Amino acid sequence: LSSESAAFDSGLLSPLSFGHDAVVSDDAVVDALVTAEVALVRGLAAVGAATPDVADEVSRALGWQEGAGCRSHGVDASRLAAAAVGGGNPVIPLVGVLRERVPEPDRPWIHRGATSQDVLDTALMLIARTALERITPDLERAADVLARLAAEHRDTPAAARTLTQHAVPTTVGARAAGWVRGIRRAASRLSDIREQLPVQIGGAAGTLAATADEFGADTAAALPGAVADELRLRTPDAPWHTERWPVTELADALVQVVGALGKLATDVATLSRTEIAELAEGAGGGSSAMPQKQNPVSSVLLRSAALRAPQLGATLHLAAALAADERPDGAWHAEWPTLRELLRLTLGAAAHAVALAEGLRVDREAVARNLALTGGLLVSERLARVLVPRIGTDRFAALIANGTGDDLAATLRAVPEAADLDIAELLDPAAYTGLAGTFADAAVPEDRR
Amino acid sequence: LSSESAAFDSGLLSPLSFGHDAVVSDDAVVDALVTAEVALVRGLAAVGAATPDVADEVSRALGWQEGAGCRSHGVDASRLAAAAVGGGNPVIPLVGVLRERVPEPDRPWIHRGATSQDVLDTALMLIARTALERITPDLERAADVLARLAAEHRDTPAAARTLTQHAVPTTVGARAAGWVRGIRRAASRLSDIREQLPVQIGGAAGTLAATADEFGADTAAALPGAVADELRLRTPDAPWHTERWPVTELADALVQVVGALGKLATDVATLSRTEIAELAEGAGGGSSAMPQKQNPVSSVLLRSAALRAPQLGATLHLAAALAADERPDGAWHAEWPTLRELLRLTLGAAAHAVALAEGLRVDREAVARNLALTGGLLVSERLARVLVPRIGTDRFAALIANGTGDDLAATLRAVPEAADLDIAELLDPAAYTGLAGTFADAAVPEDRR
Amino acid sequence: LSSESAAFDSGLLSPLSFGHDAVVSDDAVVDALVTAEVALVRGLAAVGAATPDVADEVSRALGWQEGAGCRSHGVDASRLAAAAVGGGNPVIPLVGVLRERVPEPDRPWIHRGATSQDVLDTALMLIARTALERITPDLERAADVLARLAAEHRDTPAAARTLTQHAVPTTVGARAAGWVRGIRRAASRLSDIREQLPVQIGGAAGTLAATADEFGADTAAALPGAVADELRLRTPDAPWHTERWPVTELADALVQVVGALGKLATDVATLSRTEIAELAEGAGGGSSAMPQKQNPVSSVLLRSAALRAPQLGATLHLAAALAADERPDGAWHAEWPTLRELLRLTLGAAAHAVALAEGLRVDREAVARNLALTGGLLVSERLARVLVPRIGTDRFAALIANGTGDDLAATLRAVPEAADLDIAELLDPAAYTGLAGTFADAAVPEDRR
Amino acid sequence: LSSESAAFDSGLLSPLSFGHDAVVSDDAVVDALVTAEVALVRGLAAVGAATPDVADEVSRALGWQEGAGCRSHGVDASRLAAAAVGGGNPVIPLVGVLRERVPEPDRPWIHRGATSQDVLDTALMLIARTALERITPDLERAADVLARLAAEHRDTPAAARTLTQHAVPTTVGARAAGWVRGIRRAASRLSDIREQLPVQIGGAAGTLAATADEFGADTAAALPGAVADELRLRTPDAPWHTERWPVTELADALVQVVGALGKLATDVATLSRTEIAELAEGAGGGSSAMPQKQNPVSSVLLRSAALRAPQLGATLHLAAALAADERPDGAWHAEWPTLRELLRLTLGAAAHAVALAEGLRVDREAVARNLALTGGLLVSERLARVLVPRIGTDRFAALIANGTGDDLAATLRAVPEAADLDIAELLDPAAYTGLAGTFADAAVPEDRR
Repeated sequence: LSSESAAFDSGLLSPLSFGHDAVVSDDAVVDALVTAEVALVRGLAAVGAATPDVADEVSRALGWQEGAGCRSHGVDASRLAAAAVGGGNPVIPLVGVLRERVPEPDRPWIHRGATSQDVLDTALMLIARTALERITPDLERAADVLARLAAEHRDTPAAARTLTQHAVPTTVGARAAGWVRGIRRAASRLSDIREQLPVQIGGAAGTLAATADEFGADTAAALPGAVADELRLRTPDAPWHTERWPVTELADALVQVVGALGKLATDVATLSRTEIAELAEGAGGGSSAMPQKQNPVSSVLLRSAALRAPQLGATLHLAAALAADERPDGAWHAEWPTLRELLRLTLGAAAHAVALAEGLRVDREAVARNLALTGGLLVSERLARVLVPRIGTDRFAALIANGTGDDLAATLRAVPEAADLDIAELLDPAAYTGLAGTFADAAVPEDRR
Repeated sequence: LSSESAAFDSGLLSPLSFGHDAVVSDDAVVDALVTAEVALVRGLAAVGAATPDVADEVSRALGWQEGAGCRSHGVDASRLAAAAVGGGNPVIPLVGVLRERVPEPDRPWIHRGATSQDVLDTALMLIARTALERITPDLERAADVLARLAAEHRDTPAAARTLTQHAVPTTVGARAAGWVRGIRRAASRLSDIREQLPVQIGGAAGTLAATADEFGADTAAALPGAVADELRLRTPDAPWHTERWPVTELADALVQVVGALGKLATDVATLSRTEIAELAEGAGGGSSAMPQKQNPVSSVLLRSAALRAPQLGATLHLAAALAADERPDGAWHAEWPTLRELLRLTLGAAAHAVALAEGLRVDREAVARNLALTGGLLVSERLARVLVPRIGTDRFAALIANGTGDDLAATLRAVPEAADLDIAELLDPAAYTGLAGTFADAAVPEDRR
Repeated sequence: LSSESAAFDSGLLSPLSFGHDAVVSDDAVVDALVTAEVALVRGLAAVGAATPDVADEVSRALGWQEGAGCRSHGVDASRLAAAAVGGGNPVIPLVGVLRERVPEPDRPWIHRGATSQDVLDTALMLIARTALERITPDLERAADVLARLAAEHRDTPAAARTLTQHAVPTTVGARAAGWVRGIRRAASRLSDIREQLPVQIGGAAGTLAATADEFGADTAAALPGAVADELRLRTPDAPWHTERWPVTELADALVQVVGALGKLATDVATLSRTEIAELAEGAGGGSSAMPQKQNPVSSVLLRSAALRAPQLGATLHLAAALAADERPDGAWHAEWPTLRELLRLTLGAAAHAVALAEGLRVDREAVARNLALTGGLLVSERLARVLVPRIGTDRFAALIANGTGDDLAATLRAVPEAADLDIAELLDPAAYTGLAGTFADAAVPEDRR
Repeated sequence: LSSESAAFDSGLLSPLSFGHDAVVSDDAVVDALVTAEVALVRGLAAVGAATPDVADEVSRALGWQEGAGCRSHGVDASRLAAAAVGGGNPVIPLVGVLRERVPEPDRPWIHRGATSQDVLDTALMLIARTALERITPDLERAADVLARLAAEHRDTPAAARTLTQHAVPTTVGARAAGWVRGIRRAASRLSDIREQLPVQIGGAAGTLAATADEFGADTAAALPGAVADELRLRTPDAPWHTERWPVTELADALVQVVGALGKLATDVATLSRTEIAELAEGAGGGSSAMPQKQNPVSSVLLRSAALRAPQLGATLHLAAALAADERPDGAWHAEWPTLRELLRLTLGAAAHAVALAEGLRVDREAVARNLALTGGLLVSERLARVLVPRIGTDRFAALIANGTGDDLAATLRAVPEAADLDIAELLDPAAYTGLAGTFADAAVPEDRR
């Protein structure tokens, strides 16, 4: 294989994730596959099946590093990919490659008692763990920055919009606090998942028969835990080769993360519109044709991820539901690239969320201008409550239908029944933001408010 | 509206859910909408905004029953549906209808300070709660029955299949225990969700401005909790009008349930095949043309749900990601029928899972016949471990390539290097099931093993 | 079955389709099922297997009307739904019901040689045909109305927006012409599909064995065509019981229709935003809380459909791909409600598109105001072409970075190298709309331009 | 960028497409992007805007080859990917890179009047065209080989299965003919699409304003056709920057192809099951643990594609429906990787379909054994027709409920009313295959039957 043909995808069509996705690249998957194989040998030693020497020699030969797994093993991803076609999965040729790389007497210990799925599932959990370790801090950072924005603009009144139309006032801070809540909820779910990522050690059909047959049932029963310890993964109650909730629950959390960021990005893109202009990304993107453009690029890329992630999640749920027999005829294979792409999207989305949050600028003037745009109609809900009892529904409706801006204030002042009202206060959007401030506060740790 | 036009869907194309989905029907949604509106008035009374009398009168007029919500309110679903078209949601006309049904002085208290989304979101959480209260016991029942099956067949050896081919032995019990684990995991997640279903009380744009303006911020802040108490829903940290995790987390759990049952159904359908025949549904379905057919109807219907649910979940995640502004321009509306259909599928799936589990029959003879089908090749993994060290890889491969059935036993007995081996024991699938028994046990409460 | 329990869905959560979807309701499906059964008998007579008398008697007994199928047959959808659960499909009990309703000697002719799938697939094609007959004129009407708008605003310059930002000018007419092209393309594809909807007559497993066995191969071979003629459906090359392109190609076209309308609705919703206000739906929807609101309800409902349809289409493609054996174990059953819901969405979407198009108002003032918003930067692409050769890239960039509005004109006039240029013309957006007019024309039949 | 980081995906998790997807790799996309840029310059020369010399020099400098586009341009995919992040698309940096590579006086002609979307959309159509040129012959080849199989086994009776159960007889040939019809239909649709792939030339917002402004409206109007001619693409009626049917119709056809192959693979996987064993892939895949395994690897990989493709298609439809404004804020970006992955899947699927078809083996013995499995019940539909008139429904049902195999023949011979019947013929599945032979013939060109 020429190295040129090897790089099917070097990120050209994935500007969202470029520079953030190496931890789930093919190279990273190979690292994780080798790491899983070595951890198996180490686990066999830990439970007394193999000698410590075997584990040490294999670890050394394949570049095992405590806490980091295997990196300098020399297995080439694209060659492995080529060799994977025949059997339909990369572990089958990997076993042969690894056996060649360890001392001859240790060879039988490579992949002993295991099946391809053990190694591939465990490897995918490993790269998921690494990815989650990157994503979570990014989410926390984005949330913290946005929480500061919420605090800063706790009381900046702004038009709230429903079904595209100005509705009533809210505050910039309340809106930002909503983003924070969404991101933190997703981040928290992702953290829970990270603690639960399980090792997969089941043997050919999830019974650990080979290990039990050779080393006894107790040793076999102890093996998954021993391998999990090597990898800092969780020991599952039983192999999950065809009960795929570890995959779908991970996917659900990833889709939720991308969705929470998609909501943020959707609002930022909308509020960055030339006519609205309340928000701007710090570093707007350029255009190949129009020199004046400042595009909300991070929002656009985040939204592109938000449009894709749910269907990737659906594929993983389908695969789980169709996980026939003791290894299914297609569903398992559909998971690999799908889960990986979902991790990639989430990595890129989290990184762009930080950039977006850190650069986000609020144009107070635009916020105020938009707030005044309907000339008081923004508080018509309030006006209705105060005025309908005084002038009746019909006169109120007529008043609303005609009035805008200064006209409305003047019109109201001309209403005899409203003579005692402070019209300016009544029309002040800042006086009609309800609990917006409280909700903004909730996004900010108490010591920072 | 003629009654004929009213019943767009009376279940004709949904045999899965027919008879199980009334709790999420349009009538049930109307009940929940009315219940939410009454609970709002009761909540306003609870926080001191309204008098107890108002709450009592409204409750009485609209058929509120403690713990059961409103049923005998006389609001017709199809008429409401017709009136909903203009504004694009059924709450707008509902408010008018309800005001007509309460004593004149109480009318202003209906929907006071609320917005359509408050009522519709809360109503959807109410029907979700009711649905989950039905689904969970069904899942537990199905899991319990299957756990008994796992116990009964703890040690019944059976062929495990990977990529459609016989692989190694497992046990019927281990397979059933896998189903149990998948169902229980999903059920447990659904139970968690049920405790978290939140009320929605946010007012026009999630600030509770109308309530705060009229009754003060403290009263407004207390209102969601008061309404939640009336409805046995959770009080959220803030309105979730455009942070939609309550919807997507519910959806994720529902899809997981349907997926776990889909895995069960996929295995049952496969193992019910005429050629395999290890399993049979208790009451096979008939055919319009073929008198001998005994179709695995519950499995088929469950699988049809499993093929649909993931994409319904994807739609809900998309809607969440695109929940623009303070109420989005389409995403919210896309949720209603999608979430309801997902609840419907899950209700039907859970009910059919009970029927399937309770009627499921294991044909031990067929299990044994299939187990013997490859004449010992099923334990070739074991043979390899034992024989390769004695006769080398090449001779072993040749032996496997040729041997089947009694031939294999005879062939092995003819191998000089294997003279000391107990060939019958070596070829016995029951002696090569590893931890299958242990995994089967794990599905069964200790006192029942 | 009480009539209350029968109406699971009377449209309460489907304001998009309410009033437009009766042709695909359960009642309509029952009509189509009965029609298919009667057409089979008539087809059997047409090919000489049955006597004309049998066909006449059965037709009369079951309410066959030439060109309209069966309506007054008295088969109740909800009762049939209840009876469908056992066998998992409504045709099984339907056969018994119909036999009871025809003269005793004719009973054996009901469903003769057929299987459930023949009848249900044919019925779904029938309701699809009827739905398409409603959808296509609506699409044509919407396109015609929008084409008139394109003609009227052929030369109304407007800001074009890319990635949310003002880019260069376009015209209102060019934008409308884009909608027209999208809708007409989808409508044309739907029309092609309508001509291709096939009858399904295959017998138990797609071989027509029962018919061939009883009446001979030639008669059996002629039967599908004879039934197709009765129903104005196409005669397929062979039964398509598990080659499901008639379903997926229909679904693709429906999703394309909803997508084309989704693009229209997305633009209308965006351009209706309070700050943009270039467009308004004729009859804005009200709000339960905010008296001033004029919501773009049709756009919102259309967008809700656009968010749902693609995943419904995906389910149908999945079902097609998994159409195992001679009738699959779940995939076929997943099609029914999914295809029906997709038809329902498209019916509603087409109807709302007409309403939206007919009511759509262009606010020329707002269009002009937005056009001027960036004070000439909208034509910066043009300025670059003209000025960079005169003043170089750096000076041009500085000029663009600073200039807005009248300032820009003044700034340009102060540039010595631009002294000979007509600055007003250079900055005139109407002079930089390229082929917008031509593209607008293309949407309008020549005699109407 | 190190070369290591460059190869995010070298096919490790995509054994389906490895070796078949280079035509849609990042390198191929770069080739297509450069080709599109050069074609634009050539088109500008063709319409008289640029001189022939400019076109020649740019063509030479960037490696244009007649009929093959640009290959030896030296633009590195991974570097371009890195540079694409800032603006969110690779064309922005590409323009600068290409300008550096052409003679200084020609630089202004690169990307003249174009926008990123013109180049990227056109490039994606180019790689789609190349991919389709590979896919179609593979589909034709697979269909031809399967048609030969259909001819060979035109009259090989086999059990037809519905809802997993033996139903009635069919023939191996009829089943294969179904696959052929499905594949040919999809291939034909793909061929239609290939002829329709349009060039995209619209300028910044689809008006071609820059070109019209500089060279006149007629020249601008002629430009898309001129560029299309250079690239053998179709000239569209108008730019399709936000009317995305060229993308979705392509996607629909690709999903249909993968679905048709998914149906084939599903049948092959099912009929390859150890217990059924009627079919076997020529080169079964090995296992990392079980030496005897012969896995239907191509079927498994095809099925994995079939589970993924529909959701990729859904994403493209969503992107089309949400193509806001004159370039959308995320929807367009979501298309690139999704369409490319769908092309990749289809390339791999078509290649594997050829391998699968060419290697497919029918085990006539297994087919016959399964056919006999229910001992005559397979023709119970036929028995019912013949016997019910003689012995009544009840006696017939009892007979079917008890009888199997030779017993059934004996039982039937003992029925007095059946004394005149040829029981052996009546029970012969080969005599009850209806039009199976005719349908098998339809898949085979007349001269080959």
